[in-house]
This record gives sequence, C-alpha cells and structure tokens, in this order.
Amino acid sequence: MEKLSRLLMQMEFIKEIDKLKYIQRKTKLFNSERHENDAEHSWHLAMMVMVLSEYSNAPVDVLKVLKMVLIHDIVEIDAGDTFLYDTTKNHTNTDEELIAAHRIFGILPEEQAKDFLEIWTEFENGETSDAKFAKAIDRLEPILQNISNQGGTWTEYNVPFEVVYEKIDKIKDGSGFLWDHVDELIEEFRKKV
Amino acid sequence: MEKLSRLLMQMEFIKEIDKLKYIQRKTKLFNSERHENDAEHSWHLAMMVMVLSEYSNAPVDVLKVLKMVLIHDIVEIDAGDTFLYDTTKNHTNTDEELIAAHRIFGILPEEQAKDFLEIWTEFENGETSDAKFAKAIDRLEPILQNISNQGGTWTEYNVPFEVVYEKIDKIKDGSGFLWDHVDELIEEFRKKV
Ligand SMILES: [Ca+2]
Repeated sequence: MEKLSRLLMQMEFIKEIDKLKYIQRKTKLFNSERHENDAEHSWHLAMMVMVLSEYSNAPVDVLKVLKMVLIHDIVEIDAGDTFLYDTTKNHTNTDEELIAAHRIFGILPEEQAKDFLEIWTEFENGETSDAKFAKAIDRLEPILQNISNQGGTWTEYNVPFEVVYEKIDKIKDGSGFLWDHVDELIEEFRKKV
Repeated sequence: MEKLSRLLMQMEFIKEIDKLKYIQRKTKLFNSERHENDAEHSWHLAMMVMVLSEYSNAPVDVLKVLKMVLIHDIVEIDAGDTFLYDTTKNHTNTDEELIAAHRIFGILPEEQAKDFLEIWTEFENGETSDAKFAKAIDRLEPILQNISNQGGTWTEYNVPFEVVYEKIDKIKDGSGFLWDHVDELIEEFRKKV
C-alpha cells in the first residue's frame, strides 16, 4: 500500500476515536458529582497498570496490558457504555460490541486492525494472565471511586453487596493481593453505611 | 518496606492523579466546542503512539514512549496547563513544574517515584529518540484538532502562522514523515481561510 493512503487510514482512526471522550460512564470521578468518560477512564487504567503491575498473580507483559486498557472501551463508541450492574444486559462479548470492534478497528490498515482486534478479543475473553490483570484493574477503578463517593453507583442503583461481590470477584483472578485489599476496603465501607 | 504501606502510597497516587481530569486545555475536541482535558489528551496521545510509531525517524521503545505521553502532563495538576502559544511564559522545564513533579511522583514508593521522574525528565529534555517522538505526537494532536475547528486556538488567539510553524517545528525531530503531512495539512487549511 502507498505510504500516504496508509497514513490517511490511521489519521481517520485517530479522529474517529475522539468520540470516546463523549461516552459517559455511570461512575463518577473521585469525591465528585462529575461523571467519568471512557477516555479519562482508559487513561486512568493505564496509569494504574504502570503503578500496580507488580501485584499481578502471574508476570505480565506491561506493554500488552497497557494496550488492552487503552483500547478496551473503544467499541462503546458504537455500542454505548455497559453498566456493570445492569441486570438486563449480558456483558460478555455482545454482538453489538463485536460489530463495533470490526467497524472501528477496521478503519486502520489491515494488519493494524487485526492486531487491535486480537488485543481486544484477548481482553474480552479474559483467559490469559495479561487479560486477567487488565480486567482486574478495570474492576478496581470504579470500586475506589464508589467508596470515595459514599457508595456511588452501588447506592444510586441499590446494588446489593452480594451482587457487588459477584461482579468484582474477577479481581482475584488477576491479583489476589489487590483483591484482599479491595475486600478490606469494602468491608470498612459497609461498616460505615 | 511493608507491602501494605507500599500499596497505600500507590493508591494515594492513583487518587491524586484523578485531578488531571479537571485540567482544561485551550484546545477543543475534533469538530467541537468542548475543551479537552489533560487526561483525555494523554489517552489520545497514547493511542496515537500505538498507531503511528512506525513513522518515528529512529526506532523507539513503544512502552517507554507510552509511559512518557501518559504521565507528561501530570505536573499540570499543580502547575496548570501551559498554552503552547502563550507568549508570556517560558515553556521548558519551569521551576513550578519541577516542584510539581517532585510532589506528585513523590507520593509513590521511592524507586517508582524515581522512575516516573526520570521518564518525565527525559520527555521534557527532548533529546532521546523516544522523547523526540513523544513530543512530536504531543504537538500533532492539537494541530489536527485546530484544523477540524476552523483554526481553533490559532484563530481564537490570533496566532500568526510563522509562530505556529516555529512552535510545531519539533515534529520534524521526531518524524520527518509526519512533519511533511502536517505541513501539507496546514498549507491546505491556509488556502481556505
Ligand atoms: Ca466498560
């Protein structure tokens, strides 16, 4: 392929993903009334990966995990934010998200599109050590935010703590150490409410 | 150090950097009236690094460059956003930013703080291939945004194009190929205004 037409595809992708900044999450920033958007969320996860990767149960490829968290929500540009505690929706690998992944990553030159799709699929499947740790970090951020916001979405949507525990259980698969800490934070929080 | 007190420092840092989401840039999102914040900006640069690193003049360590762009603006939590075309301020390594870097990265355990400070300093100095490419990407994003916004900050603050060229010249040091493309985009844009 000509170098310029390759660059133009990449530039088109760079413009397209600007839309992630408009996808609002249910979760709010720390000690705040302001909702977080998916781009900010993805940046924060990347920072958490940089800082916390030593606690992964298994050694991880930090570059791969960074790529995972940076791109994991891009499908929400088309498919919308999926709220973790939404009981009406199935959260794993929806058709809508798969179509979105093909459309959006498909803007890139073929081998880059394939690479992004593979990284996103690995994250979604959650089977490798890298994906398990990335998913643990994705679960961890909103817990910290909720605790800082008097329960945040847990309180707002009346989520019973059994359901919270069910949903965040996957943190264990990525990091037993971070799980133990989170477990303690939630117990402490529950004593106060 | 005890493992828990180490984690508590890291958690404190993770909370502290949430503030980057409130630092507004002068630049606006693509085709938009909405200002970009530093966290969104940092995420977008990371994505651009993932997509465009092949165009660096010299081979780069993608993991290092990702870390650079992810953390490069964290000092602005204390020092505020520095507008590239502000003629009253010197932009390189202000004392204020250095103090901010020590305070904020200093929340982390010692060897992590040192690591972050080194990466940030390498970026600021702009002498290595990794830093040159990171800086090129940091300059590139607002150009694309300004062009999509009828000139954006160039128009809003009456920045003469000689000054624009002076400020973005550093893109060449990171990527001659991206520079040529930007040069063309700006020429095209100038013909229309
Ligand atoms: Ca999500």
